[in-house]
Amino acid sequence: MTIYRAPVEATLFIIDDVLALSRHANLPGFGEAAPDVVAAVLGEAGRFAEEVLAPLNRIGDVEGCTLHADGRVTTPAGFRDAYRRFAAGGWIGLAGDPDYGGQGLPFVLAAALNEFVTSANMAFGMYPGLAQGAVTAIARHGSQRQKRLYLPKLLSGEWAGTMNLTEPQAGTDLGLIRTRAGPNADGSYAISGSKIFISGGEHDLADNIVHLVLARIDGSPAGTKGISMFVVPKVIPADDGSLGEANRVSCGALEQKMGIHGSATCLMNYDGATGWLVGERDRGVSAMFTMMNEARLGVGIQGLALSELAYQNAAAYARERRQGRALARAGESGGAADPILVHPDIRRTLAAIKGFNIAARALALATALDADIAEKSSDDATRAAAADRLALMTPVVKGVLTDRGFDNVVAAQQVFGGHGYIAETGVEQFVRDARVAMMYEGANGIQALDLVGRKLPKDGGRAVTAFFKEVSDFVDEHRDEALAPFIGPLSQGLDDLRAATMWFMANALARPANGAAGATDYMHLFGLVALGFMWARIALAAERRIAEGDPRSERLTGDFLVGRAFMERTMPETGLRLARITAGAETLMALPEAAL
Amino acid sequence: MTIYRAPVEATLFIIDDVLALSRHANLPGFGEAAPDVVAAVLGEAGRFAEEVLAPLNRIGDVEGCTLHADGRVTTPAGFRDAYRRFAAGGWIGLAGDPDYGGQGLPFVLAAALNEFVTSANMAFGMYPGLAQGAVTAIARHGSQRQKRLYLPKLLSGEWAGTMNLTEPQAGTDLGLIRTRAGPNADGSYAISGSKIFISGGEHDLADNIVHLVLARIDGSPAGTKGISMFVVPKVIPADDGSLGEANRVSCGALEQKMGIHGSATCLMNYDGATGWLVGERDRGVSAMFTMMNEARLGVGIQGLALSELAYQNAAAYARERRQGRALARAGESGGAADPILVHPDIRRTLAAIKGFNIAARALALATALDADIAEKSSDDATRAAAADRLALMTPVVKGVLTDRGFDNVVAAQQVFGGHGYIAETGVEQFVRDARVAMMYEGANGIQALDLVGRKLPKDGGRAVTAFFKEVSDFVDEHRDEALAPFIGPLSQGLDDLRAATMWFMANALARPANGAAGATDYMHLFGLVALGFMWARIALAAERRIAEGDPRSERLTGDFLVGRAFMERTMPETGLRLARITAGAETLMALPEAAL
Repeated sequence: MTIYRAPVEATLFIIDDVLALSRHANLPGFGEAAPDVVAAVLGEAGRFAEEVLAPLNRIGDVEGCTLHADGRVTTPAGFRDAYRRFAAGGWIGLAGDPDYGGQGLPFVLAAALNEFVTSANMAFGMYPGLAQGAVTAIARHGSQRQKRLYLPKLLSGEWAGTMNLTEPQAGTDLGLIRTRAGPNADGSYAISGSKIFISGGEHDLADNIVHLVLARIDGSPAGTKGISMFVVPKVIPADDGSLGEANRVSCGALEQKMGIHGSATCLMNYDGATGWLVGERDRGVSAMFTMMNEARLGVGIQGLALSELAYQNAAAYARERRQGRALARAGESGGAADPILVHPDIRRTLAAIKGFNIAARALALATALDADIAEKSSDDATRAAAADRLALMTPVVKGVLTDRGFDNVVAAQQVFGGHGYIAETGVEQFVRDARVAMMYEGANGIQALDLVGRKLPKDGGRAVTAFFKEVSDFVDEHRDEALAPFIGPLSQGLDDLRAATMWFMANALARPANGAAGATDYMHLFGLVALGFMWARIALAAERRIAEGDPRSERLTGDFLVGRAFMERTMPETGLRLARITAGAETLMALPEAAL
Repeated sequence: MTIYRAPVEATLFIIDDVLALSRHANLPGFGEAAPDVVAAVLGEAGRFAEEVLAPLNRIGDVEGCTLHADGRVTTPAGFRDAYRRFAAGGWIGLAGDPDYGGQGLPFVLAAALNEFVTSANMAFGMYPGLAQGAVTAIARHGSQRQKRLYLPKLLSGEWAGTMNLTEPQAGTDLGLIRTRAGPNADGSYAISGSKIFISGGEHDLADNIVHLVLARIDGSPAGTKGISMFVVPKVIPADDGSLGEANRVSCGALEQKMGIHGSATCLMNYDGATGWLVGERDRGVSAMFTMMNEARLGVGIQGLALSELAYQNAAAYARERRQGRALARAGESGGAADPILVHPDIRRTLAAIKGFNIAARALALATALDADIAEKSSDDATRAAAADRLALMTPVVKGVLTDRGFDNVVAAQQVFGGHGYIAETGVEQFVRDARVAMMYEGANGIQALDLVGRKLPKDGGRAVTAFFKEVSDFVDEHRDEALAPFIGPLSQGLDDLRAATMWFMANALARPANGAAGATDYMHLFGLVALGFMWARIALAAERRIAEGDPRSERLTGDFLVGRAFMERTMPETGLRLARITAGAETLMALPEAAL
């Protein structure tokens, strides 16, 4: 039996105090997001996650999804009803465009909601999460007709959405896509081919499913420059949104997976299905990438969400489970055993996870806020700076939060000892669920290459230079305060990150393998500095509240200590990352293939 | 579809060249273990693992074990036949005492066999592995009658064995055991209580199961000093070993676990079962600990075995899977995609895993050889030194090989991208299987505390001092040779380890929490130095063979480069471990309970 309490108060502190959402009240939709509204929305979201979604998490794992002989896919017991309530609550359209029925609230709130939903039930959260991707793609690249037809249905949850990229021979390398699109007389296309690993490709939650499909139009060039994006609805709608006949698309098989069993992962067959071009011909990969940033941020949040869920369960277990005695009682004979929370090794584990969770939440929400600003600010420079930060931080959030999040779930499982291995305890499901986030939406090695190969050099390094300056200014400004335990390790981390960046400039331009071999370590070094920077900002905000005698002072003081432990024990990893980066690629590339 | 090839050649190189088994020909049983015999035995073991056990690995996972209404437990299809062949081949008694029907070969060969068996089928390997524990317990602590009655049957595999320690409220803390033993008139005891997590507690592989059970005799003191060890056979044998009536012991339930589904994990009920005291009354915990060392070494090898298995599959996939292009071809247009093995990030991953596997195998085998020497040498000083090394290295092998082994399995899974998450690919089973080794036989946090709290200070630090000297002498002796890429990082690692040890002496005696908070990092720091030391010795042996123009030179040269990558990229972690250790416990212990 597992527990989950949505971290509403902690999230509000980040939004109100660390990110100071109220400073952005001039952005569209932010005026409506006054602190009391935000608190009410997130409180309600937390309750929904705790009361409706969390109780279905284990059922979803045990039952999984079922493909029936007639091609229907049914979701686990309770999912349909929960989805109906989730849609009816307006949660899917929380940050959606009000012109199409969305609530128009800041995207940062949708990101917070996403954490709660995913902690409570990651498999469930995949379904509305994918609709989000379809919304973004159509909103950015679709025609007026497509927007009018699809967006209201997607935002209300009446229809669900998917992204169809992967084929058996084409994963990371989308240029290898073989799905074809042949023009029909009416301007639509006939789509033929097979797609794999399609989350939510078929299910029983919504009346229709809107597939966004990458395919090559007959005659288009080979490689990524000949791929176009199509919208292919499961049921073809009339102009008024009423449902017509079934399209020629079907689920051929469900994958048996390590985890997220409640999420239907489908092999999809397109047998001359009718699709409509979204955006420009042959520009599908670039169109898909504009929505990818948002999806990757969502996956990063999955890493955090599972880390939080596993943490809560491990901490509760450590309070209850009595084994051995505290060191202070080592001399005593007799008496009951102590809760294992007294043991330093357990405290080390829990503090490390919690220290990550708090900073990772702040980083994810800060990045979501950048997405808001990049889209909605009326000031060009503000918009550009936010877009830079968003592009730079997206692979970091995706790669680092899922890698470290998974490690944290494993560490939390370890707190349970052998009991953690038993299905009934529940935590082993969290490990199996969390694992996928490192692999899909671009495996983390690809995130690292995106950061080092694309985001670093972009615009002459403008984004990374601005980030270094932001951290460096903060360090300079707060060097002499009570923040020293935060500033010291952050400053060291920034030095390591700058040294690594310089090393790439000196060694990776002439020999790109040096960049590629160090990319994963660089991504993690970058992530540590970003998390350390968040901790410094959180500590500053906490200090101020404590000094004011805020009623939350006791909790904030505890968090402050958790942050100190993070700076003492996690941040020194920046030195290791730098050492690995500067080891370079020589030995690795000298290895004959037969040696591996 | 997964693959497995037993690393026979690599193992022989460690045994013959690095450990120089022939130097120990004077030990009993070692005379028979001439290089050609060892090669034949391990070759045969490898074939058995590849051809008989590996094909049952996935079946075991999918089918699992079944508890029937009549209390019988059946193992997955094929396990019975494989077990019969394994027993008939004499593999269970490979290193067993010839006086009781064992083959009397060195234990180091049994350790190598254990790796192959576990890679091929970890769940299967649990059954004979547990018999090994029962053999050791009875051989060391049993009466003559018990030895005559049980050892031949256990060594032949006719009977299987178990260890019964854990109860719901008593895991690490054996003093909390509630199972009771009441004296019977005939000198036997009536055992009553429930034990959980009993691997192989009930199954259909052998005619009888010999349970070794910890229980408290009526009137014995509370805590660990009132626990005795009993032998409780499932079917009570007559003096001649013929089977009599069923004992009052039964399997009440099978645990549903994350992995090793083919291994029956039982809740065992003892309802006044007849048992016989093994060893002295109230000394059961200490008796159990003498056999624990061997079991822990076996679990450490499980970490290596799964890392090797996952590596082989990831490397094969990286050769076949074509996505993207090598950096050298970045400018080309057209042409086929390259195998992902060309990408530096994939090479980094594979080299790190292989670099661990080679050194971990050497460390496990060196420790197994120490077990041989500690038991069989006729020279007191040689025996004592080997016993010191064995005791010191056992928690390191268990904790470090299972922690890093698991991380490697996860990293290998990552090479598959999204395909790694699909059950059919097979690698996700390896992750689920490997996970348990960090938790059972003493969770790894307990291994770390054993190392720091018990093994370090033992006999005035004699064992650790000798180890430091051994490494330091090697470093001094080989400083100027072609071994520099190995000696440099090893020397730095040793410095870090010595600094950490000094820090404990200065800070953990007065404040034990400083030792406990740093224990896990210290265990890993110790493990890195031990692995680095192994690499230096392997590199030395490889250099010599290559200089001789050995026909294996091409492979050895490749391994040498893999070792260099390990020294460059893995060894720098010693600095991080030292930094965490010297962070101390202050912040962790200052955390109010409510903050966690």
